[in-house]
Amino acid sequence: MMIIMHPGATKQQVAHVIEHIEAHNLSAHVIEGVEQTVIGAVGESHTVSTDVFETLPGVQTVQRISQPYKLASRQFHPHDSVFPIDGFSVGGEEIAIIAGPCSVEGRTQLLEIAQAVREAGANALRGGAFKPRTSPYAFQGLGEEGLEYLAEARELTGMPVVAEIMAVSQVEIMVKYVDVMQIGARNMQNFNLLRAVGETRTPVLLKRGLSATVEELLMAAEYILSGGNTRVMLCERGIRTFETATRNTTDINAIPVLKSLTHLPVILDPSHSTGHAAYVSAIAKAAIAAGADGLIVEAHQDPAHAMSDGKQSLTPEAFAKMVSQVKSVAEAVGRRVAVPLAHRERG
Amino acid sequence: MMIIMHPGATKQQVAHVIEHIEAHNLSAHVIEGVEQTVIGAVGESHTVSTDVFETLPGVQTVQRISQPYKLASRQFHPHDSVFPIDGFSVGGEEIAIIAGPCSVEGRTQLLEIAQAVREAGANALRGGAFKPRTSPYAFQGLGEEGLEYLAEARELTGMPVVAEIMAVSQVEIMVKYVDVMQIGARNMQNFNLLRAVGETRTPVLLKRGLSATVEELLMAAEYILSGGNTRVMLCERGIRTFETATRNTTDINAIPVLKSLTHLPVILDPSHSTGHAAYVSAIAKAAIAAGADGLIVEAHQDPAHAMSDGKQSLTPEAFAKMVSQVKSVAEAVGRRVAVPLAHRERG
Amino acid sequence: MMIIMHPGATKQQVAHVIEHIEAHNLSAHVIEGVEQTVIGAVGESHTVSTDVFETLPGVQTVQRISQPYKLASRQFHPHDSVFPIDGFSVGGEEIAIIAGPCSVEGRTQLLEIAQAVREAGANALRGGAFKPRTSPYAFQGLGEEGLEYLAEARELTGMPVVAEIMAVSQVEIMVKYVDVMQIGARNMQNFNLLRAVGETRTPVLLKRGLSATVEELLMAAEYILSGGNTRVMLCERGIRTFETATRNTTDINAIPVLKSLTHLPVILDPSHSTGHAAYVSAIAKAAIAAGADGLIVEAHQDPAHAMSDGKQSLTPEAFAKMVSQVKSVAEAVGRRVAVPLAHRERG
Amino acid sequence: MMIIMHPGATKQQVAHVIEHIEAHNLSAHVIEGVEQTVIGAVGESHTVSTDVFETLPGVQTVQRISQPYKLASRQFHPHDSVFPIDGFSVGGEEIAIIAGPCSVEGRTQLLEIAQAVREAGANALRGGAFKPRTSPYAFQGLGEEGLEYLAEARELTGMPVVAEIMAVSQVEIMVKYVDVMQIGARNMQNFNLLRAVGETRTPVLLKRGLSATVEELLMAAEYILSGGNTRVMLCERGIRTFETATRNTTDINAIPVLKSLTHLPVILDPSHSTGHAAYVSAIAKAAIAAGADGLIVEAHQDPAHAMSDGKQSLTPEAFAKMVSQVKSVAEAVGRRVAVPLAHRERG
Repeated sequence: MMIIMHPGATKQQVAHVIEHIEAHNLSAHVIEGVEQTVIGAVGESHTVSTDVFETLPGVQTVQRISQPYKLASRQFHPHDSVFPIDGFSVGGEEIAIIAGPCSVEGRTQLLEIAQAVREAGANALRGGAFKPRTSPYAFQGLGEEGLEYLAEARELTGMPVVAEIMAVSQVEIMVKYVDVMQIGARNMQNFNLLRAVGETRTPVLLKRGLSATVEELLMAAEYILSGGNTRVMLCERGIRTFETATRNTTDINAIPVLKSLTHLPVILDPSHSTGHAAYVSAIAKAAIAAGADGLIVEAHQDPAHAMSDGKQSLTPEAFAKMVSQVKSVAEAVGRRVAVPLAHRERG
Repeated sequence: MMIIMHPGATKQQVAHVIEHIEAHNLSAHVIEGVEQTVIGAVGESHTVSTDVFETLPGVQTVQRISQPYKLASRQFHPHDSVFPIDGFSVGGEEIAIIAGPCSVEGRTQLLEIAQAVREAGANALRGGAFKPRTSPYAFQGLGEEGLEYLAEARELTGMPVVAEIMAVSQVEIMVKYVDVMQIGARNMQNFNLLRAVGETRTPVLLKRGLSATVEELLMAAEYILSGGNTRVMLCERGIRTFETATRNTTDINAIPVLKSLTHLPVILDPSHSTGHAAYVSAIAKAAIAAGADGLIVEAHQDPAHAMSDGKQSLTPEAFAKMVSQVKSVAEAVGRRVAVPLAHRERG
Repeated sequence: MMIIMHPGATKQQVAHVIEHIEAHNLSAHVIEGVEQTVIGAVGESHTVSTDVFETLPGVQTVQRISQPYKLASRQFHPHDSVFPIDGFSVGGEEIAIIAGPCSVEGRTQLLEIAQAVREAGANALRGGAFKPRTSPYAFQGLGEEGLEYLAEARELTGMPVVAEIMAVSQVEIMVKYVDVMQIGARNMQNFNLLRAVGETRTPVLLKRGLSATVEELLMAAEYILSGGNTRVMLCERGIRTFETATRNTTDINAIPVLKSLTHLPVILDPSHSTGHAAYVSAIAKAAIAAGADGLIVEAHQDPAHAMSDGKQSLTPEAFAKMVSQVKSVAEAVGRRVAVPLAHRERG
Repeated sequence: MMIIMHPGATKQQVAHVIEHIEAHNLSAHVIEGVEQTVIGAVGESHTVSTDVFETLPGVQTVQRISQPYKLASRQFHPHDSVFPIDGFSVGGEEIAIIAGPCSVEGRTQLLEIAQAVREAGANALRGGAFKPRTSPYAFQGLGEEGLEYLAEARELTGMPVVAEIMAVSQVEIMVKYVDVMQIGARNMQNFNLLRAVGETRTPVLLKRGLSATVEELLMAAEYILSGGNTRVMLCERGIRTFETATRNTTDINAIPVLKSLTHLPVILDPSHSTGHAAYVSAIAKAAIAAGADGLIVEAHQDPAHAMSDGKQSLTPEAFAKMVSQVKSVAEAVGRRVAVPLAHRERG
């Protein structure tokens, strides 16, 4: 930790900072510059908050040198985390494609689209049973009924299922029904929820918040990991910027940045990150070209009549075309799209 | 709702959109422009999602004309909502000043600072018992013990207390101990939590999310109001932008914008919106000059040793100076800072 | 143009708006909604500013339906613009790769790196002679001397050269020396400069401003096109957001968005859009996968001693590796990297 | 300057960095942390770019400790710069109010509004003769004719005039006609223009760019100051963020931040920073409460027929009301609105 003193800081103020540093069992190293003094605090500073020094008289700013996360860091875990999820694996050579409707709208709708995306090459099924909606007047999901349909779709297709968890009270039911629990963007810093899923052993798909930095995403993952749940995959889903031509701005830079900072698998959601079906395929290909480990994509058999997010949902035909193009790009960068479980079994 | 067709949309596509409009019991009005056709959908469109039309063939975009919120809207409730909260009132002529430490750190700390801010002119006491922290390794609050100290501080000073609620499971205990439940910025779209506090009759201080639009803040308030809890005050606490000179960017425009769109009281948190004690007073004055109904400010008897947010906390002396300056500005704009309950009683 | 009236607008106010619409030779179409009235203004509204109506009494907002740009629009020019630039072409099937140092630092430096990037597969050479620098104390470029070296490098390698123009007074000299004039991000809305390059017939590489929307970029292109210079290529180079892990945020969405809105070629600058050499190759591949027509990349024979932007410059080896990977991705999406002129001639 | 090494940096890499530091006549101070080594470079580092070290092997990041600007810094010039501008002064106890139309539209329009704003209490007249417009098809200003009308308005009212300069070629004519040259937001980093106005001795009103940081604004001022022109006033005019409820987001924090970092006067433009006449007065008051030294406000005798920016222009009546309210707030914070020259003379 580096403590940068104000240009006019007195010797007493510097001495006072040094006392504080030593009181935290760290050692102090002073560099007197031409205009300003900088004091390094060396030792196990990981659990010491920068707040402790920022408020001392004469201090201008405090900069942490080492990363505030450990369990999520590649520094302490150099090799990629690869983990199997009932039929597919994430984080290794294979690209995982998770697809399905925004919301589970009914039994027929779900079973139909599940079969369609499996045929087109999906490895896992997504579908929301509890829906976070900006308006209290909008469709809020089918709840447990939706989870039952997801379980039935898994039976039918052999694909593991991914669904969003919105509250601590849903942990028990989610663990029972789904293979992967998704933490949505709006809940990325719902710390109680992060702790709760951290205590389960069900894999977690953690979406980046609309205005969360890459570091905050890794700190959110750290909450889950610190509970002992090691199977966390991170998901870039677009950030909020001034640009209104698309629903969000895909932060494609986050893919190589995350791959360098963490060992956890990183996937991208081109449906939310663009908000328009017309742009999904281009961004899906870009994600794989940039090094993403997978995709999560919204698909619906009849987007015009979807109860939510129809605008950004692909038809089964468009989805199949996207998978085919993604396969080519994956090969161009030395990877391959995972073969769905059901196909393997047949083969 | 206006449905804007693509330049090349066919007559059949226009007819198809009209059918859809009528199927939702709305009437369609077609305007054929030189390049593009626009179709107005008139009627009770409030509960119809724009999604329904955005995905129809030939549609370019759909624009909602009327506001998506009703209960929070000044349009349907032209007069300011003014509500009493055990000893002070918000939303009327008087300016409310809520002050106290970021976290309740212990009994002595809280009682001391509570008395200090009351003496300096605060109307209510803030203090966190459950703390949302970016790092799982940081101090997470004293929990119920903290709430007990808050209750004791209320007894001692006569000031109502404000504390943050982080989870649905805390509703019961919060209702028991506090006068105002705060929903923090990171939970502004934790819809389960919004619904839960909406079912209580305890006043709510709803903070704007880091990257939430004014409209999303009003929709979050709508969730609470739709549960029947009418005492919601909104709080601007800075948004996330590219500027790093301050912790957040105070969106001062949001004050007059919110006052024009909603009847709910609007307050500002200059501690979080700047992140530096040195700027708090200037922004507190600006808020009142711009029309805010109150302030929530962090104060600590020894910011250098605060367990959280010391950097942005005022000392009792600095807080007293701020209150004195805020009083002058309040008078300059035809308002006055509320006299604390205890003072009134004595007087 | 749609004029949306306030909920409480009077009949007189509606009538007054209609008069204004007709005074501009447009026809008015009124839709009376349940809460609000909307008035469509139909006709040649392209040259009528929305300002004209926004300030009339009773008007809430005005929304333009048709695009404010014409010459840049794909609507009026459905086919891709493909234009040859002395040895390579942009906008067609072939991917163009422009590479070279941030600044021309000297004769030897430039000739060396020019040959190196040509060997590695570059189609054109970039290099700055006039440098926009945040600090008045930083290296500002070699000026005309730099342009002379660029001309010499063109002779030597056969590659056309691209350099930034910073001021109207430089037009004459730039036209004399370079094949493509670059307008930098900070000058994207330097309208005098846009008009000046629009009057030349030298191709222009127009970079998107740090906080410019896609629509503003197209309006800037419209300035150049309206002067009669039709050879404008657009360049995404990262936008400014809250994320600080990279220098800028690559708006990868802008690639498919621009390709759908305009017929002009679209390239991407992964050096500026990431700011770190380590991420350049990943983002270069993503750009091509997303549909970009080319790349502009910073390369330097000794980045550690570059006079500017060394941090984001590739070594010749890293650049060669990037080109090889980009070739694979280009093929995967049905395109190919253009063969440098000199290679063709030899072949 | 602090050079932070990667966790895995070797001793040779550290030694290489030290060599580089010493080669720039700086001295190196090494702090070996538990995970990472930090090297301080002490001495006259002001003219040494961080680029020099960022690209060395083993370096993670480089952080500049001292400010990159000197002439604009309060550190080297602790007292406020107060400068007289033909009839009013800026930066001292008095608040300056500059007002007038967005564009000079004609002689009668300008003379009328000039007299109206003077009567209402303005100290200086603004009006654009050269207009930066997003669309090449919009009104671009009257040019020199407009400047002549401004000069006539000055004769008539005794108020100094402020107008925007858009190009280096306009310096001569601007110096002849106006009292203050404005650099617009889009030209804040038009470095050639900054240098050109820096060589004159005409005061400059420098507007912050839409996405410029406070530090970049100060660096732009440094360009002008380094040319010897010391009369630079800075203007906050709103930044671009995700919020669309207002045209821009007023960064009110920038007022106290700038006042702490620089000795230059700081004013605010509530017309552009909100984009709506309805919000101008609230934000004008907030600016003065926060410590601004003045305001620049758009006013028009008939906003509904203004050729530009009518939506955000105040009528003379609304402007007079704003001035009256601003006066009260100014007094509340211990300042006063300057009495217009003409009034003083009469008195």
